Amino acid sequence: MPRPKPLSGFPEFLPEARIVEQHVLRQLQETFELHGFASIETRAVEPLDRLNKGGEEIDKEVYVVRRLHAEEDGRAKGDDLGLHFDLTVPFARYVLENAGHLQFPFRRYQIQKVWRGERPQEGRYREFTQADIDIVGSGTLADHHDVELPLVALDALERLHTDIGLPPVLMRVNNRRLAQGFYAGLEIEDVAGVLRIVDKYDKIGPDAVQDLLTDDLGLSAAQAASCTALAEINSADTSFVERVRSLGVRSELLDQGLDQLAAVVDAAAAAVPGRMIADLKIARGLDYYTGTVYETELVGFPSLGSIASGGRYDALASDGKTSFPGVGLSFGVSRTLVPLLAKGHLTASRPVPTCVLVAVDSEQSRDQAIAVATSLRRRGISAEVAPKADKFGKQIRYADRRSIPYVWFTSSDTGAGGEVKDIRTGEQLPADPARWEPDEADLRPQISGHWGTEGS
Amino acid sequence: MPRPKPLSGFPEFLPEARIVEQHVLRQLQETFELHGFASIETRAVEPLDRLNKGGEEIDKEVYVVRRLHAEEDGRAKGDDLGLHFDLTVPFARYVLENAGHLQFPFRRYQIQKVWRGERPQEGRYREFTQADIDIVGSGTLADHHDVELPLVALDALERLHTDIGLPPVLMRVNNRRLAQGFYAGLEIEDVAGVLRIVDKYDKIGPDAVQDLLTDDLGLSAAQAASCTALAEINSADTSFVERVRSLGVRSELLDQGLDQLAAVVDAAAAAVPGRMIADLKIARGLDYYTGTVYETELVGFPSLGSIASGGRYDALASDGKTSFPGVGLSFGVSRTLVPLLAKGHLTASRPVPTCVLVAVDSEQSRDQAIAVATSLRRRGISAEVAPKADKFGKQIRYADRRSIPYVWFTSSDTGAGGEVKDIRTGEQLPADPARWEPDEADLRPQISGHWGTEGS
Repeated sequence: MPRPKPLSGFPEFLPEARIVEQHVLRQLQETFELHGFASIETRAVEPLDRLNKGGEEIDKEVYVVRRLHAEEDGRAKGDDLGLHFDLTVPFARYVLENAGHLQFPFRRYQIQKVWRGERPQEGRYREFTQADIDIVGSGTLADHHDVELPLVALDALERLHTDIGLPPVLMRVNNRRLAQGFYAGLEIEDVAGVLRIVDKYDKIGPDAVQDLLTDDLGLSAAQAASCTALAEINSADTSFVERVRSLGVRSELLDQGLDQLAAVVDAAAAAVPGRMIADLKIARGLDYYTGTVYETELVGFPSLGSIASGGRYDALASDGKTSFPGVGLSFGVSRTLVPLLAKGHLTASRPVPTCVLVAVDSEQSRDQAIAVATSLRRRGISAEVAPKADKFGKQIRYADRRSIPYVWFTSSDTGAGGEVKDIRTGEQLPADPARWEPDEADLRPQISGHWGTEGS
Repeated sequence: MPRPKPLSGFPEFLPEARIVEQHVLRQLQETFELHGFASIETRAVEPLDRLNKGGEEIDKEVYVVRRLHAEEDGRAKGDDLGLHFDLTVPFARYVLENAGHLQFPFRRYQIQKVWRGERPQEGRYREFTQADIDIVGSGTLADHHDVELPLVALDALERLHTDIGLPPVLMRVNNRRLAQGFYAGLEIEDVAGVLRIVDKYDKIGPDAVQDLLTDDLGLSAAQAASCTALAEINSADTSFVERVRSLGVRSELLDQGLDQLAAVVDAAAAAVPGRMIADLKIARGLDYYTGTVYETELVGFPSLGSIASGGRYDALASDGKTSFPGVGLSFGVSRTLVPLLAKGHLTASRPVPTCVLVAVDSEQSRDQAIAVATSLRRRGISAEVAPKADKFGKQIRYADRRSIPYVWFTSSDTGAGGEVKDIRTGEQLPADPARWEPDEADLRPQISGHWGTEGS
């Protein structure tokens, strides 16, 4: 069998990178659980007709899944299966299916792979890991959850910042009611049309946006000017409220939106200062979210796009009688880690969990080495026994190639318990496997960040 | 949208069961890492022609994966993708693809879902989780790894036994060289044929096995009698060696097999007494493994089948120049947990990670409640704030429905920090959120086992 080549769009990690990913996932999980979110996992597949609800654009990205022998039946049908392309569609189905067994508001996190049949390109994958948090209510869901949810995400991202030195994030927040109320106050009917054009603001600039609003949508120059003026507003505190009011537009919906957004920004400024701004040009998602929307940039890495996005749905799911409103946020684990790992921004101190290699100088002493390793493991110290009886120098090279920090020698001439060598300093001391402790920092692989500006 | 129905063969857990699964997975992972195994994850898909190597029988079980718009191209081709049906095929491919970046012997664990398009039935799933450990060498792999690997698996299973009360296991071990050497010593050529018939021993009994060996394979009565005599031998110590020798068959390969099997059983008897026996009628897997083979029964639950199986391959993978021998074992996580959870044998003390519900008596005091929750979380105590300002009785019912053990009251008339109530005992005491600790056992959901004999 010739050496296989990687499949484009299906990233896989070498063991060292996987250790970094595991660390990040564990941190996310711990933060989510501290906030009372329960884990669920859903099956990888959903009926195709459920995945197709998203409309034309998503259709093409869906991977159809069929038993090999079912292939003879020809083309895909609605009751065929497809791989899920996000974690929201399966979560909505899970909520409907199990509503009778869940307690609402239901707080769940879900960390799983998703699949999209996209053309592979920089930053786009066909298989990638997402970490989602959602709070979903039965019938109603209080507005304060719109404030709570981004704080959970920011808590998780801040922990990664302080713990492994991931760059800080900047979360941009907007509100559908604010935008819709503002446009309604201006007597603009095509809200979705305006949002679609405002979404280009960062790419084409305010003048081009204004031109498109008048030329394509037929807005008056005054209406278009107000729309761009709104898009220009952002603030890390609630001062955006006054700036919006100064534009002179009034509507009840706008007031609701301003109140909601102010509450979100206020809470974030108190909890994690400098990590969130109200940014009224954020339009992406506003056409299907119904309240607050969130986008998140890793500071210094704009090319990654938004690494954590989400918002409020009035009906995440509905069974006809009961609707289930929700607010959620999805962190793009692969979207963030794959490029950062590829560029060497995140590394692990070793590619193995092993803290101690127990040397074997002859096959006759292997049992003695196994006893030492067993004793260390009982106290939570990862240990492996050298696979080959060999000279001490070779054993040290074996450990060194894997960056295992300690080698334990059990040879009879080193005394009862043996001796342990820190192969970085060369220091070798007598030690008792029932009592010896490694440096705290050596117990597990350490993750560290190596940052410059992007591309450096 | 009407209430969706579960998909047969795709088990999903409610949050409480998922907490049990997470606990089990964490225990497995910790044990594997203590033994120096590094985690890898491989993509869900492999090229179809790689999945097809297993032969006809596997073909039918493979799920083909294709982009929706590629469906027009008609039937599956070799370069199409399929979902992996085990973790061995993708691991072998990963080793070949990354051999230049790995250190051998390479110790890896891999916990992932696999998919098989089987007809769903009791104990068979279309999507299920496996936890695999393998040690793979480049060119060669020492025999002592055949001894080491089952001890890692037994260490993990024993920890689940002592920790959550999972029943003990009994691992049955056999050796391909022993069987092959024995049959060669009897001048039987059709080793695979004999193994296929001996595999029915437990179902049809020794007489029927003997009949099949003479009638179907044309063995002499003496040869057939020796084969069934071999199959009858089992022992928890190395006494099986003498019993085999007493059958009077001699061959070099048989000696090798006896030595290898004796070493495995000896080590297990010392490390985890009573958990392993040499069982010379174990034939399943002997036709594709090349040395030791392992099967594992959960004592009292024979209907689960083997929950952890594996063995030695002389060539897990080969690129034509280098071959990669390996020894591995796969634990069927879903195969074990799905039926045990369905029958109530394993439960979690609560379906949420939350340890403390911080009550809110009016929306004005929500910020105070959030501050208490934040303070608790900083010290690793999972807390959530009541979603609705409500009377104390309703707050306690909210916690009770989720089995959250503590409710924290911040109302101004309970003093500065507030008071915390253990809702099980009703005891309520003043507490400081910066110092208060729950009972150790309440910090996280506790897993417990409820066992009788099977079906009880």
